[in-house]
Formats: sequence, structure tokens, C-alpha cells
Amino acid sequence: MRPSFLSGCSALVPKDPLPSWNEGPAKNNIIEFVSTVTNPSNPAYVPPAERIATLDNDGTLWSERPVYFQLLFAIDQVKALASQHPEWKTTQPFQAALENDMQALAASGEHGLLELVMATHAGNTTEEFAGIVKEWLATAKHPKFNRPYTELVYQPMLELLTYLRANEFKTFIVSGGGIEFMRPWVEQVYGIPPEQVIGSSIKTKFEMRDGKPVLVRLPEINFIDDKEGKPVGINQHIGRRPIAAFGNSDGDLQMLQWTVAGVGKRFALILHHTDAQREYAYDRDSHIGKLDKALDIAQQKGWTVVDMKNDWKVIYPAQ
Amino acid sequence: MRPSFLSGCSALVPKDPLPSWNEGPAKNNIIEFVSTVTNPSNPAYVPPAERIATLDNDGTLWSERPVYFQLLFAIDQVKALASQHPEWKTTQPFQAALENDMQALAASGEHGLLELVMATHAGNTTEEFAGIVKEWLATAKHPKFNRPYTELVYQPMLELLTYLRANEFKTFIVSGGGIEFMRPWVEQVYGIPPEQVIGSSIKTKFEMRDGKPVLVRLPEINFIDDKEGKPVGINQHIGRRPIAAFGNSDGDLQMLQWTVAGVGKRFALILHHTDAQREYAYDRDSHIGKLDKALDIAQQKGWTVVDMKNDWKVIYPAQ
Repeated sequence: MRPSFLSGCSALVPKDPLPSWNEGPAKNNIIEFVSTVTNPSNPAYVPPAERIATLDNDGTLWSERPVYFQLLFAIDQVKALASQHPEWKTTQPFQAALENDMQALAASGEHGLLELVMATHAGNTTEEFAGIVKEWLATAKHPKFNRPYTELVYQPMLELLTYLRANEFKTFIVSGGGIEFMRPWVEQVYGIPPEQVIGSSIKTKFEMRDGKPVLVRLPEINFIDDKEGKPVGINQHIGRRPIAAFGNSDGDLQMLQWTVAGVGKRFALILHHTDAQREYAYDRDSHIGKLDKALDIAQQKGWTVVDMKNDWKVIYPAQ
Repeated sequence: MRPSFLSGCSALVPKDPLPSWNEGPAKNNIIEFVSTVTNPSNPAYVPPAERIATLDNDGTLWSERPVYFQLLFAIDQVKALASQHPEWKTTQPFQAALENDMQALAASGEHGLLELVMATHAGNTTEEFAGIVKEWLATAKHPKFNRPYTELVYQPMLELLTYLRANEFKTFIVSGGGIEFMRPWVEQVYGIPPEQVIGSSIKTKFEMRDGKPVLVRLPEINFIDDKEGKPVGINQHIGRRPIAAFGNSDGDLQMLQWTVAGVGKRFALILHHTDAQREYAYDRDSHIGKLDKALDIAQQKGWTVVDMKNDWKVIYPAQ
């Protein structure tokens, strides 16, 4: 007879903000950090404007195996354009793309990936490129999981993003991946607007086409947002130091170091890919997402290390 | 006897959001635009996430005469460091700085300014540089108005910024000036956080000094955020097209063209410096803030042109 009273009651029980995280040090550390810096009576209080959190994307917010998803996108573009470029059959990294030689491609690293992107997209406008990305994501599927790539995002990290924003954090992506490859979809998938995305980029050029201004993508690297580049990119785009940073590889090490070196309470977290069954297990010897030096330093400095197999109840959102 | 009723009443009278603007087409156009795009039942409605407004700084939010204030800052730094650089006495643009030759300096343009900044600040860290800027702003005064530079901001534009933000616009600075010259003070003065500042920049480099990570400023241009550079900078930092843009010179033309070329209702505004008494009067023949081609196009296209002498009740905030 008093449903409103009963349903009102449930609101008094604090809701778990991270339901896909098992109880343990990782979950506790996150909640302890957020509770502390948002408590106005705590000496470590941080005003909302300074609550900047930066998160890597590949391997931190979504999967990065068998190779970076952007590389799979570029391979598909190379194949689509191959008939116009007979020389690609004998030139790397195009030959590897055409032959699906993932090992050779992975070895070519972020630079190889950008070379593919540049070759397949130079001359396009920024708007045309965004359209190509959206079209690919709407149809392409992951070779192992047979799901769209935008479904291979980590459910526990989606909850973390929501939790941070509910506590007036501004969440930024800081990725080695292409800034214009991420922007067309991250708002819908992560709730992160394009102006809070930092990534690698090629140069663009303003010009008038048929009396209309366009930005044309040029085959020239503008910025590599990886390793030492991440603090540089953060400074360039945000102009203040994050108080919390989240990564999964040696490419994130300098971002984490830059973050924790600031004054006041700071938070650094490393995702350790330990789940060969539900996702992938890799670290020190991996071409993609190599986690070696950053794992040692995380352990030395007492950063939070997430053991994905044991700390996460689920990996991906339910189908 | 009913003060609460009486004071409550005044809230029913719509408050003028732009009290320093005289009634006229400029003020009307601004209010008409904001009212339209924020009205959910209007076909031209724009959701809050897409309400991006970009504003030039020099000559649009604060004065830029006798020369860009950043140039006056750089001159003071050149003088402070001159004893260590005897060669500056005979090398431009340093000689002009030491001799207070404003005309020669103005002629050197944004590039000359950046050359001075680079020469006087290479080797500093980003944090050291922010400290130097703040120290200078705390003591330096404008040669004509004898007020701190941060008081030579336009009161009507401060009201415009507040009005836009009250209507859920995100306000960005897009300036030819140095991004790291603006960030230390624009949050306090304009209410614009550092992550919403786009400007020219020199390169920085991540390195460890005494075990602590720092970003060192290098004597190398990274990006010139002027003319064709403005849409490029907007795309790089924001990743979506503004729906409203505000400028005062030919350096802003491409930003305004890029803005109005988007789909849906758009707004472009040019400040015309017409007030020789209260500020400065200049346009087509000016070294600083030249307004020539953009004025013609504004008139052709029906953009809003503010006549500062007649449209503004006051120029600067009261002392």
C-alpha cells in the first residue's frame, strides 16, 4: 500500500557506483580517491574546475587486440583503394595490410598506422573522413568476438567514466590513436565530447572549394600523442595538469608521471590485461600495448594496478 | 510590510542581459540569435553540446593598442635579459624592442612577436613561464590608460560571455596570441578555463629534471593560430564547428567563414573600432588589427558589425 515509501527507501542505501568491479584494492582506491578530493572539509579537496581526469583509449577504454582497431580500419581502406595503387603490393606497410600480415603491421607501430591512414585519406576533408569512419564502424566486426568495435569497450571503465563525471570530473581521452578517428563516435559511446579528445593527428589545411570553406587532410604528421607526447598533448589541449590518469601500457607512463608529479592528492591507474579467456592476456613482450617499465614503476610507486581477470566481473557490455 | 513580495516582483521583469549595449541592430541580433537556437520549439534549435562560441582575444575581448599587449610583455622581457645578449642592440626585432620602436615592432607582426617570446623564454618550463606572465600582469600598466592590462577588457563583451554561458554555450578563445600567455589569467578575467583557450604556440618537450617531469619550452614555432590557422586550430582543439564566432580583424575572417558555412542557424560578429576618444579608431590601414577584407565581406553577407562608439555605453569595466 505504500509503494512510494518503499521505493523511496531504496534511495537511502548508497548505490554501488562501480557494480562491475569486484571488491578489492583497485575499486577501493578509486572510491577513496574520488571521495577525498570531492569532500570540501578534507584538506585534499579539489575544486570542480581542477578535477581533470585523462584516460588512454586503446587497451584502457576499449580493446586493442589483435591489433589497434584503427589499424584494422586502415587495412580495410588500403584494400578498398588498392586497385588505384599497384605499387602497394610490394611496399610496406601496404603489402602487409593487403596480405593481412598482422605481425608485420603491429611491428610498424603507431608510425606505421599513421602512414597507412595518411596514404589512404590525404585529400579528403575532415567531414568526409568522419563519414568514412562512421560507415566503417557501422559495418565492421571484430575477428574474435564478432561484435562491432564500439561494443568492445570495457563495461567497468564506462562505469568509472560515469562515476567521475557524477563527481564533477571532466574526462578527457589522451590516446596515441588518431584524434579524427575517435571523435566521430566517442561522444555516443563514452559520453566524451570531441573537445575533450586528444590524439595523434595529421596536418590539415583551410581552403575554399566551390566557394565553401573546407579543411583538407594532408599526408603529413602533425603530432604523435604517445609516450613523451602525452604530457605535451595534455598541456597543449588542456593547459592544466590532470589529477587522475588511467592507462595500460608503457605509452602511458609519461602521462602518469606528469599527473602524479603535481601538487596535492593524485591518482594513477594501470590496467593489466590478464584475462586470456574473456579478452587477452599480454604485457612485457607484446608489440601492441607493451606494459613493462610502467608496470615496474607502478609497483614501486604504489599506483593502482587493475588485474582485469580478478578485478572485473564483466569485460564488455551485455549483448 | 511585504518586502519579499516586492523584491519577488522585480524578478518578473526580464533583466537586460547586455546592459552596456545600446539598443540597436547589434544587440538585437545577438539576443535574437541566442533566443532562437535555445528555444526547443524553434526549428533552428541547437542542443547545448553543440552551442560552441569562439571569440578572438586581441581587439575583441581586450584592447590591442598601441600594440598587442603580449608584445609589450615581450619587450619588457627583452629589456630584462638584454645585458646577457649584447647582439640584440643591432638585431631586429630586438633592437626595436630595446628602442621602444613600436612601429617597427608592429610591422614585424605575429611572427615578430613570437620570435621575441621564443628568444626570451626558451629553456623555461611551462610553469615558470606562467609565473612570469602573472608577475608581469600584476605590475605592468597600459601606457595610455595607466591601468593593468587585465582591466582593459571590454565590459560589453564580458556581459556577452556571461549571457552566452547562461544559455549553455561553451565559450572558447581563438587567438593569434600565445596560448600560454593567455591561460594564466583568462579564467579569472573572462571565466574561460584553460582547456577552452586556443592560440599560437611554441613546441614543448617532456623531460625529467632532478627526478621530476617538466615541460620545457623550445625556441621553435608549433602553431600560428591566425587567419587560415584559426579554423585549423578550432578543428584541432574542439573538433566541431562553432555556431557563433566573434572577431575584429582580417585575422578572424576565416574563422567567421568556417563558422557560418555550417548547417543550421549561425552567427558572425565583427567589432569595428570606431571610438578614438574612449579607446582607439582604426580599420583598413592599421598594422595591428587590420580590418579591411573582413569588413567588406561582413557587409556583403549581412554579418553583425558592432560600431563600438555608438553601440557600447561603456568600453572598460568601472575602475
